[in-house]
Amino acid sequence: MVTPADADAHGVAAFVSAFFSELAHGGVAHVVVSPGSRSTPLTVAAARCPRLRLWPIVDERSAAFFALGLARQSGRPVALICTSGTAAANYLPAVVEAHHARVPLLVLTADRPPELRGWGAGQTIDQVSLYGAAVRRFVELPLPDGTPERLRYARALAARSVDDALGSPPGPVHLNWPLREPLEPPALPEPRPAPRSPAQALAQAGRGDHAYTVISRGRKLPGEEIIAELADLVVRHERGVVACGPLPPDTERSAAVAALARAAGWPILADPASGLRCGAHVGIAPVIAQADLLLRDADFASTMAPDVVIRLGDSPVSKAQRLWLEKHPPEHLWLIDAHDGWSEPSHLASRVVRVDETLLCRAVAERSPAGRRGAWTRDWTLAAERAAHAVDRATLSEEALLEPRAVRELARLLPDDATLFVASSMPIRDLDAFLDASEKPLRVLANRGANGIDGVVSSALGAAAADRGPVVALLGDLAMLHDIGGLLAARVHGLPLTFIVLNNDGGGIFSFLPVAEQGEAVDFERLFRTPHGLDFEAAANLYGLEYTRVATWDDYRQAILASLSASSPQAQAHLVEVPIDRDANVKHFRELIAIAARAIGVEQSA
Amino acid sequence: MVTPADADAHGVAAFVSAFFSELAHGGVAHVVVSPGSRSTPLTVAAARCPRLRLWPIVDERSAAFFALGLARQSGRPVALICTSGTAAANYLPAVVEAHHARVPLLVLTADRPPELRGWGAGQTIDQVSLYGAAVRRFVELPLPDGTPERLRYARALAARSVDDALGSPPGPVHLNWPLREPLEPPALPEPRPAPRSPAQALAQAGRGDHAYTVISRGRKLPGEEIIAELADLVVRHERGVVACGPLPPDTERSAAVAALARAAGWPILADPASGLRCGAHVGIAPVIAQADLLLRDADFASTMAPDVVIRLGDSPVSKAQRLWLEKHPPEHLWLIDAHDGWSEPSHLASRVVRVDETLLCRAVAERSPAGRRGAWTRDWTLAAERAAHAVDRATLSEEALLEPRAVRELARLLPDDATLFVASSMPIRDLDAFLDASEKPLRVLANRGANGIDGVVSSALGAAAADRGPVVALLGDLAMLHDIGGLLAARVHGLPLTFIVLNNDGGGIFSFLPVAEQGEAVDFERLFRTPHGLDFEAAANLYGLEYTRVATWDDYRQAILASLSASSPQAQAHLVEVPIDRDANVKHFRELIAIAARAIGVEQSA
Repeated sequence: MVTPADADAHGVAAFVSAFFSELAHGGVAHVVVSPGSRSTPLTVAAARCPRLRLWPIVDERSAAFFALGLARQSGRPVALICTSGTAAANYLPAVVEAHHARVPLLVLTADRPPELRGWGAGQTIDQVSLYGAAVRRFVELPLPDGTPERLRYARALAARSVDDALGSPPGPVHLNWPLREPLEPPALPEPRPAPRSPAQALAQAGRGDHAYTVISRGRKLPGEEIIAELADLVVRHERGVVACGPLPPDTERSAAVAALARAAGWPILADPASGLRCGAHVGIAPVIAQADLLLRDADFASTMAPDVVIRLGDSPVSKAQRLWLEKHPPEHLWLIDAHDGWSEPSHLASRVVRVDETLLCRAVAERSPAGRRGAWTRDWTLAAERAAHAVDRATLSEEALLEPRAVRELARLLPDDATLFVASSMPIRDLDAFLDASEKPLRVLANRGANGIDGVVSSALGAAAADRGPVVALLGDLAMLHDIGGLLAARVHGLPLTFIVLNNDGGGIFSFLPVAEQGEAVDFERLFRTPHGLDFEAAANLYGLEYTRVATWDDYRQAILASLSASSPQAQAHLVEVPIDRDANVKHFRELIAIAARAIGVEQSA
Repeated sequence: MVTPADADAHGVAAFVSAFFSELAHGGVAHVVVSPGSRSTPLTVAAARCPRLRLWPIVDERSAAFFALGLARQSGRPVALICTSGTAAANYLPAVVEAHHARVPLLVLTADRPPELRGWGAGQTIDQVSLYGAAVRRFVELPLPDGTPERLRYARALAARSVDDALGSPPGPVHLNWPLREPLEPPALPEPRPAPRSPAQALAQAGRGDHAYTVISRGRKLPGEEIIAELADLVVRHERGVVACGPLPPDTERSAAVAALARAAGWPILADPASGLRCGAHVGIAPVIAQADLLLRDADFASTMAPDVVIRLGDSPVSKAQRLWLEKHPPEHLWLIDAHDGWSEPSHLASRVVRVDETLLCRAVAERSPAGRRGAWTRDWTLAAERAAHAVDRATLSEEALLEPRAVRELARLLPDDATLFVASSMPIRDLDAFLDASEKPLRVLANRGANGIDGVVSSALGAAAADRGPVVALLGDLAMLHDIGGLLAARVHGLPLTFIVLNNDGGGIFSFLPVAEQGEAVDFERLFRTPHGLDFEAAANLYGLEYTRVATWDDYRQAILASLSASSPQAQAHLVEVPIDRDANVKHFRELIAIAARAIGVEQSA
């Protein structure tokens, strides 16, 4: 006998199933789900959708960063499911990062129905607009039911949520689901009478194998006047650079940017997370990896003051580059961002261009097929080569375990199409200064939207879950400790990933700041550097990771190669701990800056 | 030579110092600080304030829960300092819990100055109103400077923030601090010329040893008519109960509630986190600890349907109690909450009373000095005694390690004035069913504002940091894994605390839900129970905790006693892992419900 409660439960199940079925049609393949009771209808419906892969992760903060990494690496929206209450609040850090980094996420939070909110019911907080302006859209759903009108809504809502998440710019979308008890699915399958009308059939089954609503999204085509204007800049100015900050990976865009740079004879100053530092395009255009090192030299920075800067992507990590432009403001600073961002904290933009970067760069490049090869490009590339050479010699003769060489050794060891997930504190700066440009198609990802130290472990694991070649995470000990619970996913899901932990026993990055010089007067060790004395072998033991503590560069190379070549039947994560002497590392980093400056100084005086 | 930048830095330092000095005057004693660069002026000023104790904690989510636990245990506002960006977002779960649980927190977030917000500067997110309606007040500060006007503002703002945090109801306050570089304090001390006016002297030095602004806060005195009305209810109705949900500890209130209950002859149904289950007042009034067990019995629930319910505190954890009232709605359901809350999700309140609970209960009790001793009270106490006795026999004859006996053994072992910090998932329900009422002044704390599983480790450590007798945390394996990074504080700060981890390898609580019966049809094991197979010895090794894995009840007792009596010179935390067979535990819990029902059934038929 079907009771009214059963009928309601069947209606909820039909609604939620229609929603997830259309999410899958819209390109969603992964759902990261944290265990909970209120979210039961969502979890069960997602699990029963054959085209969705579910990733259970207990800690919602880790779950959200895992989804973020998965979405970053796959370029597709990833859905999140959690129960009501602070579970949803734990998503905030990753939602904020996704907002700034333009990563598509579908955040599905279960909630109590309206009549139980604000009345002291358990696990009930105000989830309406919980993530503020950090989401592309907030939707408070009605209580789900199985009427044809509501099933159409469920299907259209799924399509629209994917559309919002992939919008301009992409980002997180928050759907808040009021759900009443009973939460478990009805034990008996629903009696499914034949639909009595085409409208009912459409609502119940959608469009069969096809999406209920297909979204087409055009690119912002540059007009003739903007192409001509940039082409004119190219002709009139030799002293230009293309400064690329963090961008989602896109080889088509990289090729177009390289074509523009080659045509204009303007070097590309490539942030490590821009996708422009490494890849096939490096063969056709001058890519400068050493800008951060070079521009720390006041003489070089002044001699190489540019007339034109074309900025793409988020703000580059290099502070030296920012100060260079603030000290030598270019006549033309173009910011090209089709998605209406304005990532330019120096307030120097002379022109903001809302067109597709790839189409604009390609169109301008096609007008200057010969390409310019002048002294300007040569000075940049020569300086970069000399700096790179000097740094290479100096790092390779350094037997102590220090970060610059760790980066350079790692770059050599990584296979084609490997992904390097880098923490946003010191490691991304190490990469900026010491990762050479190369044609090797190496993908560098980092949470550079909000640049937090949080969630790196989980984000890297999410990237590994996308199943797109080997993933190596490079992070400091504090970043590891901040998200150590994220390692549980490595174990539970058997994800193969190499964590390289540069362990300088605390926040080594603070030793680079002026406050470090005040030492005891500001209680520097205790309040800023925060040493902990932990040995990460125990962490590896806890979560079942292979562990190596390296003592020499030979160990380092062998541990990384072993982790990358591991072909055990059971996929496994590796933790490679690299003990770093913090003070020696600061000293060495500063020496390398001086060495790079001397190397280019020789050139200038020659 | 004092440069303009030095003058600015001196101004910032003067402003921030004045602020922290007045926080200390306002009763703040503890500041939980996470390392960061943007927050340097705040951290340094707090460190230099001799009356503040600083607790560095790396992970901001753990830091906020640590502050929450410290504030809960001490009853005083605790300040938090973090840098800009997602650091602040990590506070949200604890801020939401503090909002619902009425715990005073002062959340101080560093931010970029307005001209760098929304322009792609690093670690910059929208922190304005980041915590939405979960804070008592949001304040966007101006850029600090050292003018007399601004120093007065800094002092008054500190006083006002404490006032807001201790308001009606108490809760979190968010102050967002725009700070410009240079962030480090000036190397040279400020040349301090003698103040040129009394106004300047006041701004610079405040009021010396006294607070700049002293806050007086009255209690909401009940009027004669409400006292008379409740006294009249007492006279007219024998069938009443005082149902107390989670409340901040307050022995004065407990005594007043007990006096009312005694006068009226109404039993106190005492939630484990109400402060009413244990304490000296238990000697003077009928405190029923077994309500959750008793009211699961339909006959008892129906026989004992009440005419009057006086509700205090947040919603009780007992679902059986809620269903009892929904099925047998009392004629009079009074909700007494001076702080304007309305924690009554059954929508049965007939009267809401906005007066001080202690004053009202005491005034009514004084009108009925003799006290009523009728069949109603006797039936409740007799049933409770019989249930407790039967449960006691049944648990003590159970040699397997199961949760009910773990609670009962623990209650016997805890010394007077110990604090038991309980996770809000299964352990609080274990306590509700199996912790007997007792005159032993045992303090039970739990994050029952939003009832999240998050932050328990850190909250318990924060409670231990308040230095108020021994603290024992009782939690499941998932709660431990959710906040495992919080254990770092135990090591770094040498906090003595016993973690009892009831390890049933996943979310044992889900096995009590109807969805569990659907098993593979809903992928129950993988998506709800989420087993992990972890051994917590490695966690203890990682963070330097003493570890015991117990195999028998003897081990259990010895491990807990050893941890409580540890008098090593170096304070240390202990982790006691109790392996629990999940299925046996569910079965045993249900058996005990049946045993309790049989025990009171004997009485009813007798």
